[in-house]
Amino acid sequence: MDLGLTEHGRGLRDAVAEMVRTRIAPLDAEFHTETGRTGNRWEHTPRQTEILKTLKDGARAAGLWNLWQTHLAGGGSGITTVDYAWIAEEMGKSWLAPEVFNCNAPDTGNMEVFLRYGTDAMKTQWLEPLMAGELRSAYLMTEPDVASSDASNIAMRCVRDGDEWVLNGEKWWSTGAGDPRCAVHIVMCLTDPDAPRHQRHSMVVVPRATPGIEVLRGMQVFGDDEAPHGHMHIRYTDVRVPSEAMLLGPGRGFEIAQGRLGPGRIHHCMRAVGMAEKCLTLLAERGVARQAFGGDLLSLGGNMDKLAEARIALDAARLMCLRAAWEMDRAEAETGTMTRAAPFISQAKVMVPRVALQVCDEAIQMHGGAGVSQDTDLARTWAHLRTLRLVDGPDSVHLRTVARAELRARALH
Amino acid sequence: MDLGLTEHGRGLRDAVAEMVRTRIAPLDAEFHTETGRTGNRWEHTPRQTEILKTLKDGARAAGLWNLWQTHLAGGGSGITTVDYAWIAEEMGKSWLAPEVFNCNAPDTGNMEVFLRYGTDAMKTQWLEPLMAGELRSAYLMTEPDVASSDASNIAMRCVRDGDEWVLNGEKWWSTGAGDPRCAVHIVMCLTDPDAPRHQRHSMVVVPRATPGIEVLRGMQVFGDDEAPHGHMHIRYTDVRVPSEAMLLGPGRGFEIAQGRLGPGRIHHCMRAVGMAEKCLTLLAERGVARQAFGGDLLSLGGNMDKLAEARIALDAARLMCLRAAWEMDRAEAETGTMTRAAPFISQAKVMVPRVALQVCDEAIQMHGGAGVSQDTDLARTWAHLRTLRLVDGPDSVHLRTVARAELRARALH
Amino acid sequence: MDLGLTEHGRGLRDAVAEMVRTRIAPLDAEFHTETGRTGNRWEHTPRQTEILKTLKDGARAAGLWNLWQTHLAGGGSGITTVDYAWIAEEMGKSWLAPEVFNCNAPDTGNMEVFLRYGTDAMKTQWLEPLMAGELRSAYLMTEPDVASSDASNIAMRCVRDGDEWVLNGEKWWSTGAGDPRCAVHIVMCLTDPDAPRHQRHSMVVVPRATPGIEVLRGMQVFGDDEAPHGHMHIRYTDVRVPSEAMLLGPGRGFEIAQGRLGPGRIHHCMRAVGMAEKCLTLLAERGVARQAFGGDLLSLGGNMDKLAEARIALDAARLMCLRAAWEMDRAEAETGTMTRAAPFISQAKVMVPRVALQVCDEAIQMHGGAGVSQDTDLARTWAHLRTLRLVDGPDSVHLRTVARAELRARALH
Amino acid sequence: MDLGLTEHGRGLRDAVAEMVRTRIAPLDAEFHTETGRTGNRWEHTPRQTEILKTLKDGARAAGLWNLWQTHLAGGGSGITTVDYAWIAEEMGKSWLAPEVFNCNAPDTGNMEVFLRYGTDAMKTQWLEPLMAGELRSAYLMTEPDVASSDASNIAMRCVRDGDEWVLNGEKWWSTGAGDPRCAVHIVMCLTDPDAPRHQRHSMVVVPRATPGIEVLRGMQVFGDDEAPHGHMHIRYTDVRVPSEAMLLGPGRGFEIAQGRLGPGRIHHCMRAVGMAEKCLTLLAERGVARQAFGGDLLSLGGNMDKLAEARIALDAARLMCLRAAWEMDRAEAETGTMTRAAPFISQAKVMVPRVALQVCDEAIQMHGGAGVSQDTDLARTWAHLRTLRLVDGPDSVHLRTVARAELRARALH
Repeated sequence: MDLGLTEHGRGLRDAVAEMVRTRIAPLDAEFHTETGRTGNRWEHTPRQTEILKTLKDGARAAGLWNLWQTHLAGGGSGITTVDYAWIAEEMGKSWLAPEVFNCNAPDTGNMEVFLRYGTDAMKTQWLEPLMAGELRSAYLMTEPDVASSDASNIAMRCVRDGDEWVLNGEKWWSTGAGDPRCAVHIVMCLTDPDAPRHQRHSMVVVPRATPGIEVLRGMQVFGDDEAPHGHMHIRYTDVRVPSEAMLLGPGRGFEIAQGRLGPGRIHHCMRAVGMAEKCLTLLAERGVARQAFGGDLLSLGGNMDKLAEARIALDAARLMCLRAAWEMDRAEAETGTMTRAAPFISQAKVMVPRVALQVCDEAIQMHGGAGVSQDTDLARTWAHLRTLRLVDGPDSVHLRTVARAELRARALH
Repeated sequence: MDLGLTEHGRGLRDAVAEMVRTRIAPLDAEFHTETGRTGNRWEHTPRQTEILKTLKDGARAAGLWNLWQTHLAGGGSGITTVDYAWIAEEMGKSWLAPEVFNCNAPDTGNMEVFLRYGTDAMKTQWLEPLMAGELRSAYLMTEPDVASSDASNIAMRCVRDGDEWVLNGEKWWSTGAGDPRCAVHIVMCLTDPDAPRHQRHSMVVVPRATPGIEVLRGMQVFGDDEAPHGHMHIRYTDVRVPSEAMLLGPGRGFEIAQGRLGPGRIHHCMRAVGMAEKCLTLLAERGVARQAFGGDLLSLGGNMDKLAEARIALDAARLMCLRAAWEMDRAEAETGTMTRAAPFISQAKVMVPRVALQVCDEAIQMHGGAGVSQDTDLARTWAHLRTLRLVDGPDSVHLRTVARAELRARALH
Repeated sequence: MDLGLTEHGRGLRDAVAEMVRTRIAPLDAEFHTETGRTGNRWEHTPRQTEILKTLKDGARAAGLWNLWQTHLAGGGSGITTVDYAWIAEEMGKSWLAPEVFNCNAPDTGNMEVFLRYGTDAMKTQWLEPLMAGELRSAYLMTEPDVASSDASNIAMRCVRDGDEWVLNGEKWWSTGAGDPRCAVHIVMCLTDPDAPRHQRHSMVVVPRATPGIEVLRGMQVFGDDEAPHGHMHIRYTDVRVPSEAMLLGPGRGFEIAQGRLGPGRIHHCMRAVGMAEKCLTLLAERGVARQAFGGDLLSLGGNMDKLAEARIALDAARLMCLRAAWEMDRAEAETGTMTRAAPFISQAKVMVPRVALQVCDEAIQMHGGAGVSQDTDLARTWAHLRTLRLVDGPDSVHLRTVARAELRARALH
Repeated sequence: MDLGLTEHGRGLRDAVAEMVRTRIAPLDAEFHTETGRTGNRWEHTPRQTEILKTLKDGARAAGLWNLWQTHLAGGGSGITTVDYAWIAEEMGKSWLAPEVFNCNAPDTGNMEVFLRYGTDAMKTQWLEPLMAGELRSAYLMTEPDVASSDASNIAMRCVRDGDEWVLNGEKWWSTGAGDPRCAVHIVMCLTDPDAPRHQRHSMVVVPRATPGIEVLRGMQVFGDDEAPHGHMHIRYTDVRVPSEAMLLGPGRGFEIAQGRLGPGRIHHCMRAVGMAEKCLTLLAERGVARQAFGGDLLSLGGNMDKLAEARIALDAARLMCLRAAWEMDRAEAETGTMTRAAPFISQAKVMVPRVALQVCDEAIQMHGGAGVSQDTDLARTWAHLRTLRLVDGPDSVHLRTVARAELRARALH
């Protein structure tokens, strides 16, 4: 169970860390402040465009591009999932970094879908420009009117009409669908309500420009619309695509969703570890920088204990993340699929956001008013981390997975 | 230890609850959405002005006005602090309600300061219109450059120059200072750095219109500037006030701050109980409204347990709040001051926000994406509750108070 | 909601507290050490008999006898349940005290059963000597072979044979059944497996001396058999009692059990508050008595915070206990039964042992090795408190009660 | 960071696991019940002697002997500390197993002391028979009258008298000193109260048979004296040993203690992981074996969530333990000492017992009364695990170590 970096991975990790620290993170605040300066929050300002171009060119030139493509995912980067976990942690330390390295959600997951299940035409039309970082994509799964944590509730209808599929319904929390460069949707929809539970749904590829697509609004995360990226509320009215737009064929939506979500779930966790490390740094630095009641803040009350508890919990969370990555590599190597690693991914998915939130919350408390304000990154980080307990399956769903695996392993259920 | 309502209090509580439920809370969302519609977030829109006027007139006409003025606070309302705790809980269920009943922070605390320590001139100029709900005020305590949880760190300088005091420095988190009707600041400042620790500071009354006052920006709470009320970052440059603007005299700032903050601390907690009740209602209703995995959400996993745990924690938190109120009444009756009740206030101040945050967080989780979004009040409520662990003394300061009282009671320290 | 003592109650509480502190608690250790000195752990040594007699005579002479008999329970003591909560807290500070005041479990519950449901003959034979403290009794409910938290699982068979009932089966955790003075069992048994779920069981009064009763062993609580009181494992083989030994008649076991358990559940909680107060005292005293790393233990790390947290949690737990007592008084006064108070009792039953365990655990930690050893009362206290999360319904059952009441109150289920 | 077994280690782990499961654990209960059957709890019964001999012979014959001697510890077993962590986990699943494999505390730590710091004579006299499993030893550190968590408080005096050292004072919690085969004490004592803080103490080797040694009593752990092994309270009165009995020389006690405790601390944690796994097995099995309210216990309320949470926490705790082991191996390899690994050991030392206690407590709750009784191993396991939060440094000391390392790594302190 080698949870460390390979030699190749270490070189990449160090390069990513250096670039994040010296070139990307210093631009986070400016990029963020720019949003909306043109009067439209859903487009990039010239400065934003420039920042992204410069940084992405830099990453590409340095060979730090599409590192998400571990050997599990087609192998472009030549690294293991464990390597990628260490690398993604570094990307988590900057808001811009994931996109700079072409490793941002939901594009990585969507690229995997195209890689695994796409037709040649889709690969040319969508995968290539996505791999080149020229386009953005969205994944339309969650719906406003049903408990989407149970994916069998997904209700957007998709019916056959001649050579076409016709889609009707609403989706929300379609991350990245607000981005002006978003060109394609991958859509989970209901094709046969009467089929067995896991064969009712299908996955369809829909060009953003298709008539009938209406972006209703951006969903806010603790008041933040995260423009221009966004999490959009979208309505489909008689949206028509050709029959070949359906991936694999009718009724195979669950199968694709499972394949898609595994790595993505853990990517969020990997970055969350990095976010929490950033918070811990802020906590420690603030704790020694401010004085009260005759000492620095860290020396007061239980603050040193809190620092230690944060370090312990965070190291444990990272190990859980790395272990899940290692199980993914192993499962793929031994069985050709990551299915077996699912309970380990679920374990990390429950633990990591919880720990990261706790560390972030302690950092907020150590900062006093500054901690909840725009003067630090902490409140925004907290809000983002809070969504991770919902995104890609809420805690309750992952706990079910873990408990069932436990009973199965003991032949008790 | 009667923690129940008096008969008079019960009538008022029921009337407040009814008005909040039927008239005020239904306007919260509209009022909130209006903000900034004029292009300036720091003024009321005509509709906002109209809403406030109508509701305030209604409250005044119904005799539900200045209820904060318990017998501890001059006695206008003829109720106990315990009564007020029950009433404030109801006000906590609407964002608008505290102002509608002229019971909003920081005005209640500032009115208490004027009542207790103000000159007749101040009472005429500031107290009367505040009591009438015509003006708003701000309390300038916290500073960006020091750990303000230790009030002896407060550094805004106030020096004598002839018949005047001259103030220089920066304050932030000056709640309500963004309100267009805010007309007066009460300012904690440093008059004698060489005096004994608790005699260095003084409290000065400064008209908002005094030259040299600059509102730099609104502080954001998890991205929300809470305009037009606001939490402002303010700079004082050579702000001059006449010598009689200093309350009680030089070096008595701590004394006034202690008197001021007691009731205010608990007011926030009382309202937080109401906020948490609102969250619990949302949690329960969502839990039965949505279906997943063959049942309603509440019936899944540990959700019923979470509902029960929330009820238990919240009832305990309310009792702690009521007990603190009762101890305030008793201390005032027996000793003429609330000093003795301080550890009980601190106990509630630590417990109530923590419990309310937990209940709110469970409600968020039960809502999935809707919980963090603009479609429910939950994220905004969470952000507000999170600040209560910092406002009026962070948890760590109150834990110190509780621990020291415990040792003192045992004659161990 | 008056959670304070009545004047009468205060006098009794003060007298009980004084007697516990000065006369009873000082004998706890000696009484405990005596056990087994005769070679038989299931009898009293002469010294134990003497201690009990002297103390009980003292309590009776001081009018501190059968105080459990609040107005709810026939009214002998003339106090409210709230009064009794305060009094029972004091009794919780000594292991001997509950019996000394004739307020020990399970006798109080059994006396209530005889009072409410017993025939005149039972009152003469069992209730009178129990009230006089001359006999002890046991309550046989829990069984080794079924999950007894669901009382409908109770399987001890009771079948009619002519004028007699014949009982067969095993019970365990029959508290007090090891006591040499234990003269009577009240037994929950299955009379009609085919009846509706809550009418299958009955309650029978069985003299201890009846043939066919076999005490198999004493159950241990964390290694402690709690002799000579004990928690016995008992086998009934063809145990015969006359038909009039059945309380109220066949199928009414659940009804009696509900009536019996309400007050008893809360008695344990009341005493647990007192136990936790004793632990908190030990924690604070040890914290200032020992030195390490240049200060006393309390001043190290987060120890002052832990002291404060313990005080907060414990005060909240006490309030929940008092509130439940007050709701019992109110329910009885308004409806003639305590049924309505059940969710409040359940709330306290979940919260109080949990808090008391936490306080006790912190006290153990502050003591180092002494904390887990025979040199303090802490380990024994912890073990006892741990059983309270199981006795009279495990946490999970009470959480169900609370959650269901919550939904019912909202008309959601 | 390879946290997995080497190939050699895997073979040994599997063999140990098999032997524990099939041969050792099945004898735990009988061995335990035997204690005291001779009338003297501090000697082995013939059956106990037979059990130990048979099992130890079996272990030795199978080459599963002294596996604690990783390459860090002289290298006899040829395995890494990581290997040993996996192996020790298996040993933790039986009370007898550690001694059967000659891997029990405190002998392993004492053998390390002799290996590293002992004279040739000591190696012949003590180390050899200890390695052969013929003798037992004790380590006398903790004292009743001082907070021994701060080792600089250790007060047992050791003064020079001619060619001899003379020791006077009391020790307690001397684990294993009750064993009839215990032949030697390693004693921490105070030689120079005026020296710098970490040079005041020395370590002396004292034959058990030396005059002046008095075993006062066995300390109880939650009522259990853990005879015949025991945790003894010992008095030294003018105990004389020759000058060469002092290890390394005067003032070097701290240095030796640090060297000694590192591996030992983590050994306890490794076994605790195994204990918790045993508890989790009991929890799951009980959860499906018992029925209540219409389903098995596991399906009720939040029980499935609790199972999942236990699995997550336990896997994380194991990884922390393995990571600490790996850091020990690395530190030794790179620096020749384990000093650098101390913060990682401390992290595991805080986390592992806490998690194991939580898992054990959930298992107790799932068992109802059986969980606290003699019918399962759970209460005894809980009591043992509880001491791990105190043994080898209480949590607070390890949190200090972690916090300081964190600040040091950031150059903040």
